[in-house]
Amino acid sequence: MKRDKHEKLMDLAKRRGFIWPSFELYGGVGGFYDFGPLGSVLKEKIIRKWREYYVIREGFFEIDSPSILPEEVLKASGHVDHFIDLMTECQKCGTPFRVVDVIKEVTGEDIEGMPREEVQKFMDEKHVRCPDCGGELGSIFEFNAMFRTMIGPGTKRIGYLRPETAQTIFIDFKRLHRYARGKIPFGIVQIGRGFRNEISPRQGIIRLREFTMAEAEVFFDPQDPHHPKFSNVAGKKIRLWLASDQEKGKTETMEIKAEQAVKNGIVCNELMAYYIVLTKHFLIDLGIPEGAIRFRQQTPGQRAHYSSETWDAEVLTERFGWVEVAGLAYRTDYDLRRHSEFSGEDLSVFLPEERRKVICHVIEPSYGIDRTFYCVLEHSFVQEGNRTYLKLKRELAPIEAGVFPLLNRDGLPEKAITVLESLRLKGFHVEYDESGSIGRRYARADEVGTPYCVTIDHQTLEDDTVTIRDRDTTAQVRVKIEELPKALNLLLREGAALQDVGVPMGL
Amino acid sequence: MKRDKHEKLMDLAKRRGFIWPSFELYGGVGGFYDFGPLGSVLKEKIIRKWREYYVIREGFFEIDSPSILPEEVLKASGHVDHFIDLMTECQKCGTPFRVVDVIKEVTGEDIEGMPREEVQKFMDEKHVRCPDCGGELGSIFEFNAMFRTMIGPGTKRIGYLRPETAQTIFIDFKRLHRYARGKIPFGIVQIGRGFRNEISPRQGIIRLREFTMAEAEVFFDPQDPHHPKFSNVAGKKIRLWLASDQEKGKTETMEIKAEQAVKNGIVCNELMAYYIVLTKHFLIDLGIPEGAIRFRQQTPGQRAHYSSETWDAEVLTERFGWVEVAGLAYRTDYDLRRHSEFSGEDLSVFLPEERRKVICHVIEPSYGIDRTFYCVLEHSFVQEGNRTYLKLKRELAPIEAGVFPLLNRDGLPEKAITVLESLRLKGFHVEYDESGSIGRRYARADEVGTPYCVTIDHQTLEDDTVTIRDRDTTAQVRVKIEELPKALNLLLREGAALQDVGVPMGL
Repeated sequence: MKRDKHEKLMDLAKRRGFIWPSFELYGGVGGFYDFGPLGSVLKEKIIRKWREYYVIREGFFEIDSPSILPEEVLKASGHVDHFIDLMTECQKCGTPFRVVDVIKEVTGEDIEGMPREEVQKFMDEKHVRCPDCGGELGSIFEFNAMFRTMIGPGTKRIGYLRPETAQTIFIDFKRLHRYARGKIPFGIVQIGRGFRNEISPRQGIIRLREFTMAEAEVFFDPQDPHHPKFSNVAGKKIRLWLASDQEKGKTETMEIKAEQAVKNGIVCNELMAYYIVLTKHFLIDLGIPEGAIRFRQQTPGQRAHYSSETWDAEVLTERFGWVEVAGLAYRTDYDLRRHSEFSGEDLSVFLPEERRKVICHVIEPSYGIDRTFYCVLEHSFVQEGNRTYLKLKRELAPIEAGVFPLLNRDGLPEKAITVLESLRLKGFHVEYDESGSIGRRYARADEVGTPYCVTIDHQTLEDDTVTIRDRDTTAQVRVKIEELPKALNLLLREGAALQDVGVPMGL
Repeated sequence: MKRDKHEKLMDLAKRRGFIWPSFELYGGVGGFYDFGPLGSVLKEKIIRKWREYYVIREGFFEIDSPSILPEEVLKASGHVDHFIDLMTECQKCGTPFRVVDVIKEVTGEDIEGMPREEVQKFMDEKHVRCPDCGGELGSIFEFNAMFRTMIGPGTKRIGYLRPETAQTIFIDFKRLHRYARGKIPFGIVQIGRGFRNEISPRQGIIRLREFTMAEAEVFFDPQDPHHPKFSNVAGKKIRLWLASDQEKGKTETMEIKAEQAVKNGIVCNELMAYYIVLTKHFLIDLGIPEGAIRFRQQTPGQRAHYSSETWDAEVLTERFGWVEVAGLAYRTDYDLRRHSEFSGEDLSVFLPEERRKVICHVIEPSYGIDRTFYCVLEHSFVQEGNRTYLKLKRELAPIEAGVFPLLNRDGLPEKAITVLESLRLKGFHVEYDESGSIGRRYARADEVGTPYCVTIDHQTLEDDTVTIRDRDTTAQVRVKIEELPKALNLLLREGAALQDVGVPMGL
């Protein structure tokens, strides 16, 4: 049986410690994944890159708040009423299904966004039956997709696990606006777990019940939706798939300059266009090819209850087709207005220069870190003849360098371990390996995307030099041990080429 | 009314964006705190420092797994049966109390660890009444302190929010042992949220319902509890408060070398002693004075159900006295054995050189990041005359440098912003401030612990130099803008002194 790229990749991911299904010891529970020793570092590096974009460069402020929210917050936000999945159960085997999923699985048709009243009719007309046992499916009904719990004893206070990190940003608005010294626009981010009690998740890491999100909320005056640095991105091209084209069944996308997209009224405002460009650059920076990125405009029926315009950043994958990795929503003043109403607090701000009050509008770029992680892995997976390796960007590689003694004797392992320890003290993420031939160890390092291997050989004992090998070219140079930290720093963080840091060796 | 240090600190913490109680807009819910823009960075830097210790230097492997666990896992771990708080309710006003807390509040006595059957007697004898209304307290009863939820529709599968991150490390043991290439000892860490459904939390950030933990599990052969690097710490002194002394009512601690503590049988083995020393160094590295650190041995009644010996790392604070910030538990083979029994999987390992099988024993150093955060803040809070500032270690400061135009005109703000942007592109966490006098801006920066302020003045426009001011000494030097990133790097990351990076200025 020929295995597709996804299967090979997932085999590698499980075997080498990137990701695996959670709770395997107890038979597993759908919708949960563990990040292993390599996966957790890669995920952390993706998050660090995201922070570099939003917190460091764009100057957003980060907050970190609980994942349990009291019911009041989610009543106000609309999630108690609207965070609903339609479901059905097989009358024969009892398997529960999310209606949209089972229809897609059986008929291939995507009915996301279809009005509720048409869905039952559609199912009946298409004679959709249980894909597991062929049994008849029961009537559709609503299921709130939030995890529910009780805060404190006595079941007096209902709580939910947050379906998005955004809500505590909205309820903290007054403190945050004060922190931003009363100026708008300003941006807040939050990175953390989000939860969605999926009915019957079947798509591995693409459809999780507990996932990591990185969300940004940009608060601005609706009369002034300009971005101060828009000129930096005005001429950049973005690839859009319009809602109107989707509704007509057209699969073609359009490429357009950010500036033009705003002028033509295709994208609602400068802020939205700015973050679409930023998202594209972020994905490219993670190693996703430009051609595998598009922005799909959600149709009105697909949009969340709080959004008046949403663009999904999608990445093309082999197994899952186009995968949504980020959603950019124009939330208008929906959330602040609702929290104002429900709490009785005035959440408007006064604009002294314009002598008017306004409830800020919000543009929200929201990223799914787990899906981004998967796309990064899939797009870095390279097979060349017998060689399989992850061509991860150097700065994303979980292990920055392998440290190997050429042979397992003659004092080489001891020397290698002193090199290893000195690099660890300098903060490098390095791993030691002495088992098997040097070729096998290189192959093992390549397989998990380790960009450099440092080898200690007999010459090391004579002149304190080691070799550095490059994952992508397999070329090697020789450097002095004392210059190794500097060389690795140049290679990993400054983008230096191998020949710039040492003396090239013949092959 | 004179405010104590804690109140002044919490005022600063709320006002300046470190931490504040969650859900304030809806009246708040006890046991939940938000980390604001400065707090989230400080917390992240504490976590980064922890990773530096455990992941980078000690070579532990990190995993990252769900916070929702299916019931099977927690039945096996013993939490369904043993993660219990005794509670009581006021018969008059209905307020629920954790029995241990209400007794401490009313009588001042700490009965943690008292056998259940004696607790009711003790309460009756001491005539403990409701501290809120004086009403009579009802009979004590058990409350499981885990948050409960349902996974998937139909309430068929019970789940709990994890009370500790450790459990998924145990159930992943086979994969992780394979990842470690079958060698023991090896160590795994996990950093993430933990949950405890406190009955009626009243101690701010010290008693949270949702908190961040950093846990390490060291798997080893019980016949060989040696640490390969023990000689590095053997001569280091640790301050211990023995369980036997506590039981005798003695408050004196003892200071003893790590090596001696193991030899005398005071600390169970080398591994435990090694991590006690490591914990002490970690806390000192965060800025906690050595004299404010002790290790308290839990009495048998206080220990968790899985532990045969536990040492709590405690830090002395003004408001809360000695606060437990980490617990180092000898979990023996309890968890692996239980998961073996409950899952039916053999979780023992074979030791080829010794030709025997063994279920690994576990030493667990487990850190509470929120409490550590509070202790770091309190110990960095300095009042000198009119001046209040946070003497945070430079590498922990949330804002690495302030960037200020001396005056709000003459092109100085524009120049300052170009300096700001160039530092952000180099990855520095810098903030701009142009409002108020320069003295006020320095004071504002000092108050949140910003170690350096860069000021753009008229001389800058002439010769492209700026001043750097030191938070602790208020001394200033002048450096060229092009050398600013290098200077800040030396100051923030290499521990350089101010006079080493620029030309000193008269005061």
